[in-house]
Amino acid sequence: MDVTTYPEFSTNYPLLLTTFMKRPVRYYPDQIGVVYRNHVTGDYQRFTWRQWYQRVCQLANALQNQLHIQPGKPGQLGDRVGTMSYNTHRHLELYYAAPCLGATLHPINIRLSEEHIAYTINHAQDSVIFVDDTVLPLLENIYDRIKDTVKHFVYMSDQPGLPQSKLPGLIAYETLIATEPKDFDWPYLHEDTTATLCYTTGTTGQPKGATFTHRQLYLMTLHGMARQSIVNTPAFVDADRLGENAVPMLNTPLFHIHGWGAPFSTVFSAQKIVLPGTFTVRGFCELVDREKVTSVGIVPTIAAMLLEFKDFDKYDLSSLVNVGVGGGALPLGLKTKLEKMLPNFRAGSGYGMTETAPAAIGAFVKKHMVDWSRTAIDEVMVKTGLPVLGLEVEVVDGTGRPVPWDNQTVGEIAIRGPWVTQEYYRAPDKTAEVWYDGWFHTGDIAKVDEEGFVVIADRLKDVIRSGSEMIPTLLLENLIAMADCVLEALVVGVPDPVWGEKPMAVVSLRPGMPATEEDIMDFLEEHGVKTGKITKWMLPKLIAITSDIPKTSVGKYNKKAVRDNLDRFLAIAKDMSVPLPV
Amino acid sequence: MDVTTYPEFSTNYPLLLTTFMKRPVRYYPDQIGVVYRNHVTGDYQRFTWRQWYQRVCQLANALQNQLHIQPGKPGQLGDRVGTMSYNTHRHLELYYAAPCLGATLHPINIRLSEEHIAYTINHAQDSVIFVDDTVLPLLENIYDRIKDTVKHFVYMSDQPGLPQSKLPGLIAYETLIATEPKDFDWPYLHEDTTATLCYTTGTTGQPKGATFTHRQLYLMTLHGMARQSIVNTPAFVDADRLGENAVPMLNTPLFHIHGWGAPFSTVFSAQKIVLPGTFTVRGFCELVDREKVTSVGIVPTIAAMLLEFKDFDKYDLSSLVNVGVGGGALPLGLKTKLEKMLPNFRAGSGYGMTETAPAAIGAFVKKHMVDWSRTAIDEVMVKTGLPVLGLEVEVVDGTGRPVPWDNQTVGEIAIRGPWVTQEYYRAPDKTAEVWYDGWFHTGDIAKVDEEGFVVIADRLKDVIRSGSEMIPTLLLENLIAMADCVLEALVVGVPDPVWGEKPMAVVSLRPGMPATEEDIMDFLEEHGVKTGKITKWMLPKLIAITSDIPKTSVGKYNKKAVRDNLDRFLAIAKDMSVPLPV
Repeated sequence: MDVTTYPEFSTNYPLLLTTFMKRPVRYYPDQIGVVYRNHVTGDYQRFTWRQWYQRVCQLANALQNQLHIQPGKPGQLGDRVGTMSYNTHRHLELYYAAPCLGATLHPINIRLSEEHIAYTINHAQDSVIFVDDTVLPLLENIYDRIKDTVKHFVYMSDQPGLPQSKLPGLIAYETLIATEPKDFDWPYLHEDTTATLCYTTGTTGQPKGATFTHRQLYLMTLHGMARQSIVNTPAFVDADRLGENAVPMLNTPLFHIHGWGAPFSTVFSAQKIVLPGTFTVRGFCELVDREKVTSVGIVPTIAAMLLEFKDFDKYDLSSLVNVGVGGGALPLGLKTKLEKMLPNFRAGSGYGMTETAPAAIGAFVKKHMVDWSRTAIDEVMVKTGLPVLGLEVEVVDGTGRPVPWDNQTVGEIAIRGPWVTQEYYRAPDKTAEVWYDGWFHTGDIAKVDEEGFVVIADRLKDVIRSGSEMIPTLLLENLIAMADCVLEALVVGVPDPVWGEKPMAVVSLRPGMPATEEDIMDFLEEHGVKTGKITKWMLPKLIAITSDIPKTSVGKYNKKAVRDNLDRFLAIAKDMSVPLPV
Repeated sequence: MDVTTYPEFSTNYPLLLTTFMKRPVRYYPDQIGVVYRNHVTGDYQRFTWRQWYQRVCQLANALQNQLHIQPGKPGQLGDRVGTMSYNTHRHLELYYAAPCLGATLHPINIRLSEEHIAYTINHAQDSVIFVDDTVLPLLENIYDRIKDTVKHFVYMSDQPGLPQSKLPGLIAYETLIATEPKDFDWPYLHEDTTATLCYTTGTTGQPKGATFTHRQLYLMTLHGMARQSIVNTPAFVDADRLGENAVPMLNTPLFHIHGWGAPFSTVFSAQKIVLPGTFTVRGFCELVDREKVTSVGIVPTIAAMLLEFKDFDKYDLSSLVNVGVGGGALPLGLKTKLEKMLPNFRAGSGYGMTETAPAAIGAFVKKHMVDWSRTAIDEVMVKTGLPVLGLEVEVVDGTGRPVPWDNQTVGEIAIRGPWVTQEYYRAPDKTAEVWYDGWFHTGDIAKVDEEGFVVIADRLKDVIRSGSEMIPTLLLENLIAMADCVLEALVVGVPDPVWGEKPMAVVSLRPGMPATEEDIMDFLEEHGVKTGKITKWMLPKLIAITSDIPKTSVGKYNKKAVRDNLDRFLAIAKDMSVPLPV
């Protein structure tokens, strides 16, 4: 590039992940930036920002020189670099080395079925796969299906040496980078260069690959950080302003939609990043105690596991001032216990998907709500939320018109904005199913209340059509989850000769809190129908109490699995329907 | 635009001021968004966000339908809309209506000389000028010089009707917009559409026009808001997180480099914006008291005026939790008094210029400094600061290489990044003087300390070359300003037969604190030479004590005026030089 021209460095200065990567080493080169605890051995490794940055440079050199990874340009992806890895320091290094030299990072979802994993590797055409030692068996199981695609395999372990393996030419990561220079002349890529390729979980059909450019990830991150400028803190909350001194633990897998963006904001913010490998209860507590973790995001399942942990009281978790619980409805009983256990935890809802990178809608306290009671604020925080800064989000009817903000009329959530994926990789037909009329159509159903809060009602494919009405299953699930005795709940439609479909609730109970199907119906009448949250015809016609609700690979309720095994659940369900009047 | 295509709404979703404008009316339509106090009459006007938004739409319709303002596209500016206005609600409406329909806003600096004002209007080729009633006489004075350029004149006043005026076809603003529709189909402009054209103050030659696109202003604003995510709060500071509940008073003139960005961040953040017209001491205090202003930026001159205000104690200023004092060295005595008067004020330095829109370098407390003493933190906060998030800033030597971070070696500040102006409008020669080798060269001299803090030493054109050395005048000025008895100080070079040039300090004293030239020299020896901050040969050879230090149109010290009137200052100066040893 001609260094005397300036549009590239002014009006068109590229927004790159490289800018994130370079910041912490510039200002805090000798401070510990990355802490990794091996979840199997319990061993720790700590890296200063200088050390981490140098390793990223060495890795980029290795990708280029030894693995012959070629950069891309707008409209043409760079070579794909696949990872099969938990939240380790190496995975974080890959998150920067690959995109910043212009290659495309493909964080493989290792919780998919083997068939789907192999599919995504072949579809993405990964040139190389970097694999954790603990994940090697999985990779070896699918090797035959991907061997014509992948040219190199790199083994990531804290132990020196290589294991016996069917993978040909297996290289050890530390050996790979050891002889490479500790600096790298990072290119000023065009900001429209693809940085990552992330596949959806494919609950319907094959996984689809969403691409994201450097610009898109930079803008999602920056708008998320800008939220700190507008966030309204309720009066009863101690405002903390940790800034760069926050110590975030990256708990969300880096193979799950960019770890929800954490690897980007935390590096740019020069915060000490704590990587736990994969979640274990003991590892979680030990890391919080030892590294003084201040911030972490968890899902209700993890909250439940922490509550059951017998050694919980042996750890000092007082540094945790910012615990976000999202990804699913938080049952009331669980919430109450969590509040006692972690005084600074705050339940917050949110909504996103692979295709939105994933930030789309998030819990938010509006400016006039700061003096509301704790209960009122909690209620606001569990509505799905407001569109995040920078995105256009509308709930639209069949004609594409926004529904009124009347807390009643449902429509489909449509989104557009700087970090919504442009297309499914090599799948224009699938892309055309979601991108039309200038909007990305999510397939999720919601209503909007008078304040503009979006309230998720259902997945389009999950909505139950009973008679002429739509029964919003997510609303029902959230309501059932509020019952003290309930641990988890999901609602699916069951074929019915009269109604077309009727709702069945599948419920698991909290240990030591027995309850009957009637108890649950009474709760719904009392707290749902009488309060106007739901109508009588939305009540479940069947309730199945079980201890084993099927989950997807990312811990969400698997309605497809329930629908595919309907007979099993029908066999244990109780018919709660009221006979039609004669 | 084909609404079924998606790159425009995903990877290339345009970053526009329109997004800022649309946010507050969406979420807070019936809350007061804009408060304006007429600085002459003392009358108030308040607008809900809906009312403000509707007025902006009406204005856009008027610009388009009645004034025939045409939008531009990348590479071709839209018609220029000039403003000669203080900080009024109408000026804020213009800040959005013009750029968001694709026209170019030219906020005219009404403190320039009449000659320079006329020059900028003709150079910019303003199609229309919107003028405040209080500024009309100035416009009439230059009318003959601009009458071939400007097609329309719009008169902005809170009083109905029009005055007698030589301006032909003068239209009243309120009449202009009254009949226009209250909505507008805001176009999805390309983000590289020029939004504003801002002229420098032209201390050397004619003013130069810096252009800024929507993308550039959006990104400057967003990075500034993201700072809240990384800011480290010293232990002795009560962290406030006002968010949208902050009540900013826009004190910096909107014709001074985008009012330092305030009109953008405050609208996007949906904060109640308080507009004082132009600064008056009584207006300032009354507005803070009445509107519960929480945040304002002031310059030392204003601080001094507030201190002298006899009715100061009659107002409740306790809502002011965030007072930034910048734009010049803050003398110690002034600082101490301010701290007593406004307990939450925080002196913070910064550096910027028209060409950087203006955010470039700002005071920052690094993460390990949060437990430092108040004195130590204050010292950090008055260093020039760290490069703001998102910009590349280097201090380079003559070969373009960054100087070592040794707190000693000086070089020139070079900048590049998303919001540095691409070019001076219609002045490629002037542009080539500053943009070369891939960097924008500021002409300012600085050093960098071990923590990476940039410390401004001088303007390239102001540096004093004494013998073979460069004497950094700004360092000297900041040091002199620390003396308790000193109100203001500037240092210029005076021709010398032995040294080529020698430094002369021009100093004004705090009222009621008499001091002699010897007192000042003693202070410099004690606090400057003995502490190693300056060397003996940097000491002023002449000191002139005066009550009248000339200022520029934006309140800064006018060294050019001193140099042009050197004899006057030499006449009152005392020779402090030590005779050369024989």
